Amino acid sequence: MTLAPDFIQLLGTLLGDRFTQSLADREAHAGTEAHHVPMPPDAVARPVSTEEVSQIVNLCAFYGTPVVAYGNGSSLEGNATAAEGGLCLDMTLMNRVLEVRPGDLDCTVEAGVTREALNDHLRHTGLFFPVDPGANATLGGMTATRASGTTAVRYGTMADNVICLTIVLPDGQVIRTARRARKSSAGYDLTHLFTGSEGTLGIITEVTLRLHGRPEAVRSARCIFPDPLSASEAASTAIQIGLPLARIEYLDAGCIRAVNALSGLSEPPADTLFLEFHGSEAGVDEQVALFEEIAAEHGGTGFRWAATEAERAKLWAARHSAYTATLRQRAGARGWATDVCVPISALPGCIDHAKRLLADCPVPASIMGHVGDGNFHVVFAIDPESEDERALVARINDSMVERALACDGTCTGEHGVGLGKRKYMRREHGAALEVMHRIKAALDPYGLMNPRKIFPDDQAAR
Amino acid sequence: MTLAPDFIQLLGTLLGDRFTQSLADREAHAGTEAHHVPMPPDAVARPVSTEEVSQIVNLCAFYGTPVVAYGNGSSLEGNATAAEGGLCLDMTLMNRVLEVRPGDLDCTVEAGVTREALNDHLRHTGLFFPVDPGANATLGGMTATRASGTTAVRYGTMADNVICLTIVLPDGQVIRTARRARKSSAGYDLTHLFTGSEGTLGIITEVTLRLHGRPEAVRSARCIFPDPLSASEAASTAIQIGLPLARIEYLDAGCIRAVNALSGLSEPPADTLFLEFHGSEAGVDEQVALFEEIAAEHGGTGFRWAATEAERAKLWAARHSAYTATLRQRAGARGWATDVCVPISALPGCIDHAKRLLADCPVPASIMGHVGDGNFHVVFAIDPESEDERALVARINDSMVERALACDGTCTGEHGVGLGKRKYMRREHGAALEVMHRIKAALDPYGLMNPRKIFPDDQAAR
Repeated sequence: MTLAPDFIQLLGTLLGDRFTQSLADREAHAGTEAHHVPMPPDAVARPVSTEEVSQIVNLCAFYGTPVVAYGNGSSLEGNATAAEGGLCLDMTLMNRVLEVRPGDLDCTVEAGVTREALNDHLRHTGLFFPVDPGANATLGGMTATRASGTTAVRYGTMADNVICLTIVLPDGQVIRTARRARKSSAGYDLTHLFTGSEGTLGIITEVTLRLHGRPEAVRSARCIFPDPLSASEAASTAIQIGLPLARIEYLDAGCIRAVNALSGLSEPPADTLFLEFHGSEAGVDEQVALFEEIAAEHGGTGFRWAATEAERAKLWAARHSAYTATLRQRAGARGWATDVCVPISALPGCIDHAKRLLADCPVPASIMGHVGDGNFHVVFAIDPESEDERALVARINDSMVERALACDGTCTGEHGVGLGKRKYMRREHGAALEVMHRIKAALDPYGLMNPRKIFPDDQAAR
Repeated sequence: MTLAPDFIQLLGTLLGDRFTQSLADREAHAGTEAHHVPMPPDAVARPVSTEEVSQIVNLCAFYGTPVVAYGNGSSLEGNATAAEGGLCLDMTLMNRVLEVRPGDLDCTVEAGVTREALNDHLRHTGLFFPVDPGANATLGGMTATRASGTTAVRYGTMADNVICLTIVLPDGQVIRTARRARKSSAGYDLTHLFTGSEGTLGIITEVTLRLHGRPEAVRSARCIFPDPLSASEAASTAIQIGLPLARIEYLDAGCIRAVNALSGLSEPPADTLFLEFHGSEAGVDEQVALFEEIAAEHGGTGFRWAATEAERAKLWAARHSAYTATLRQRAGARGWATDVCVPISALPGCIDHAKRLLADCPVPASIMGHVGDGNFHVVFAIDPESEDERALVARINDSMVERALACDGTCTGEHGVGLGKRKYMRREHGAALEVMHRIKAALDPYGLMNPRKIFPDDQAAR
């Protein structure tokens, strides 16, 4: 779109060189992690305060300019692409940890603080922020996407760890979604409404988060299984008996081979669970003993244990490089990650189904999953130029989503809807999608907040 | 209001004797637990299925009749009064446990199932539903009020334990708010929006709930303290070090005296914490040892431990009769329970402040609290005929709420807004209240769903 000259001039006056229309900056904010087509904004603004965001959003409302918040650009479904152009709000200068309250086990940060920066800041407090989606995402972005990752099985997702939010509404007004009490029944739960709204209802500028005490003891392990079904059944059994695992991650044999090739590791090329236990020394011992029994019942062998931080880092290296390792199997490849999440009893069947879909797929692919939540990804290394490969992967994704929905699961456990999952929204939600859209229309009547995300293009017409 | 003759005839045809206009039935559904003025509906309907609720609500929409869902009538803020008359939907015939899925640690119940009925149903499964607000409320009502209670410190509130809901919208349409996967980032979080919406956005007809494994070991205890400050500081310290208490409840000395008088117990008349620990045998031992250290540092003495179920029941009898015992101090009294919830570091100061407010209050009153959440109640036994007493208690409540809001707390931790807390909504939420009201107007444009609740009467005019 063409930005109004007055709009450009006003933003330039307000922000100085923190407002740019340079091609390089626009292309750097096109939201292109993964397989989606890059869609650059027409300009980039870098606010430093909630008040500035309010002023900018107010101008966008006046000039009818779409506005898209942007963190570290690590989202995977085109969530932060400028699908209708307009203004990108790069939040990364809003990177102050505003307050840490050890006595309340919480903290307040600006939206542009990354999870690693927060944990660095907390390192002498005995507290930590557990949600770990892999990428060093901003906490605003993680909130907007309702992200989770490896530790959600123990500590919950962003939905469980956000206490309240400061939001700039589409007309520039600033609200706080809740008080800082750990529970409340004072009216509608706006905190959860904005968590996962992907910037379509307003801009998150500050986030108040629950913190957790660092566990007294941490033990990590990996364990190999004869096939995907055994591994996922072991995971599902551990959850069913209530084992309070801190992490339980599955990597399939092909993924382990890719990791070995990338990182010079020599992990056995087998279906593998990576585990972590948090608790007191005695509590961790109990959990370990219980898990070893479960694993043995499902053919698990080759336990490798790590207790020191250095050993743990080495053991988890395989898991952490899984996405990159999958892409590096092929020069010039781009990632396409599926993201179904199903009730835990349905997980083994769904992983088995995915494995069969991949049997004669020529595109390199790994299965990796937060199996304690019933959530797993197939990561494909696609040739971005090949329409055939895109079509093939889209068909496999469709089939996985269809299976997940048939099991009362969801098309996206943690990546959000963005552009990529819009086509499944009506099947997943039925008439509830209209309720979501009525909320969207009530709060953003001109449709300027991250347009074309979450809702299928034909939604507004219904 | 006068119900349209056609409306009456159609409901009679649909429901037979499950539709009544008898005075006795209307008065039995006036929502009069606690101090609010009874407001009977004009008629009572007893649906037996989601489909019937849909048909009834559709008729209400057509005839412009207000509709108020009703569970066991145990809410405390006039949440289920028929403030504009109309139809009461008594949900108690929808009392089937539809499915228990041990492999997914969840179940689906109709809204009229009570929490005790659910736990009876689960007794041979090794699972239980933990949320315990005291009263044997229906699970639909608990969801609508975002209830919590004694175990929220460990297991969370209804917000943490509802997986998805079936809702009849104001036009009669039926939606499901989410899939059954344990996490999802597929669009707006309607589950949390309807949880705590007090029937103002639609009628909850089915609830899918998380279940928890029964702990291997349970140990209960009570411990007495020299004053309220020591007791609440011990509670707050236990939370700050991350002790995973299953329950930690405070009763002040006056409350213990009332309990002794009612129940013939001989508990020491002192500020008391009642505790419960869940875990493995070894885990519970660790927790107990840690808590004993904390209590000793704050002058706690007189530990009494209970390990068997019978001993535990006896020990908890004091806590469970606290509300009744407070009212029984005075013939003909009615209850008025305050409900602030504050960040845990602010709790000791707020309890101390409440204690000072009560120092020269002639109305019998007890302090009791879910102190692990920062939530406590003053229960007053008011003379319902005395306007002076109502005015005095209202002033004390105002002062407690003011203090809680100044600490970034909330006016209601778990009782909901209903009629009683509407006057605090604007101060608690500021401009966010307008956002809530825009959602209300978008989903219930004719304002027929539990009218006059949550929002101050002047809200619609703004």
